[in-house]
Amino acid sequence: MIPESHPRYKSLVLRDKVKNAFLDGMLSDSGMIAHGRGEAFDYLIGEETSEAGFRAIDAAAVCLLLANYPVISVNGNTAALVSEYIVELSSLLDCKIEINLFYRTSDRVDLVEAKLKDAGALDVLGTNSDDLEYLGGLDSPRATASSEGIYKADVVLVPLEDGDRGEVLVENGKKVICIDLNPLSRTSLMCDVSIVDNIVRALPLLIERIKYYKGKNVEDLEEIYSDFDNKENLELALDVIKSYSFKK
Amino acid sequence: MIPESHPRYKSLVLRDKVKNAFLDGMLSDSGMIAHGRGEAFDYLIGEETSEAGFRAIDAAAVCLLLANYPVISVNGNTAALVSEYIVELSSLLDCKIEINLFYRTSDRVDLVEAKLKDAGALDVLGTNSDDLEYLGGLDSPRATASSEGIYKADVVLVPLEDGDRGEVLVENGKKVICIDLNPLSRTSLMCDVSIVDNIVRALPLLIERIKYYKGKNVEDLEEIYSDFDNKENLELALDVIKSYSFKK
Repeated sequence: MIPESHPRYKSLVLRDKVKNAFLDGMLSDSGMIAHGRGEAFDYLIGEETSEAGFRAIDAAAVCLLLANYPVISVNGNTAALVSEYIVELSSLLDCKIEINLFYRTSDRVDLVEAKLKDAGALDVLGTNSDDLEYLGGLDSPRATASSEGIYKADVVLVPLEDGDRGEVLVENGKKVICIDLNPLSRTSLMCDVSIVDNIVRALPLLIERIKYYKGKNVEDLEEIYSDFDNKENLELALDVIKSYSFKK
Repeated sequence: MIPESHPRYKSLVLRDKVKNAFLDGMLSDSGMIAHGRGEAFDYLIGEETSEAGFRAIDAAAVCLLLANYPVISVNGNTAALVSEYIVELSSLLDCKIEINLFYRTSDRVDLVEAKLKDAGALDVLGTNSDDLEYLGGLDSPRATASSEGIYKADVVLVPLEDGDRGEVLVENGKKVICIDLNPLSRTSLMCDVSIVDNIVRALPLLIERIKYYKGKNVEDLEEIYSDFDNKENLELALDVIKSYSFKK
């Protein structure tokens, strides 16, 4: 048990969730190392949602509401940290959840599926390897997509996605929204909307903004979305790191 | 096998060492996460030793030479990455090596000891749990120290140390030198000399500087040490991160 008085309590609770998911077999060793990288970047933005984060979350909310067929892609780290929010988001958007694992094994897929169902998910795609299509006819494990999920999606929300995988989605004409604490990652640089924030803070805010915009005039939403410039916003996110000071 | 042509070859080789140490049981899961944090910070300083790094290494070399009874503290990540340098350093300073594991198990202690002995260490302290003293009479696993090692040391070199443990050392009057890629970590902020650099680059440089200063006049060394300001140097280290830009 981590004492609530510990100066790094919140961060240690998340680390514990990731460690337990790893010990349960849900996460690969690379998933643990990836979490460590995330911790470092979160440290550098002061472990709070920045102005750049809020702006990207707003754009993402609008983008998801304007989508014809949005899908949420889930990996081990996402399931370990925010399964409940993922389920709430999918029910709010009435959209599919699809499991995509960079290091895919059937055991790991089963564990992620169980975690999502525990959190209330009724239907989870990407669980049966035989039913997967290949995006762009690319014969690579990076290109798999469920026919009723990402394969036919126009907008994909990929929290914590790998660069190679992100590339395949973008190249196959998907509009991609990522949540990635590294503003310099290949994923952040190539996505349409890059939310540079911790997934545990970003998702509840995203849910809140979707509730706020839901039912609003489509032309207004389109205008809000077209006002968003991802490159410019990433520069703003990097400025947050640069402005970090010891006086804080 | 990682191809030498891979753009992130060096980093992937280190990651592989850490993964293998973990699979062998030498490292805790937290050790893997810690390595991920290190990767992120190293990325942000361009994966090379900065001016701030060189300055701290110089101060550390002098501080170790001025010490009456310096000791090198070794954990799993350090043993996995730089056992050979640790052994060379201890022979150069004629000082003890002591194993200190944040998540201590006797299996893990044995594996770290074997790794150090493989690298040529003759004598390794901190291996027998029954022989450990408690710093400041603090009944906590964070406060353990070998009576012939850290317990009586005036200067402790702690590569990759945890914040809680660092605090205990400082509070018990030890002069502490750390090697930590995060200039904002609790450890970095509380140490006397904080080397913000990758341990695989910092240790060979430290060895080189100790060879250079060894045998020099004590007053000169004292002057060099008193000219070093750790807080100021950490600001310089943070400036390296801040100057990172998309144009790079």
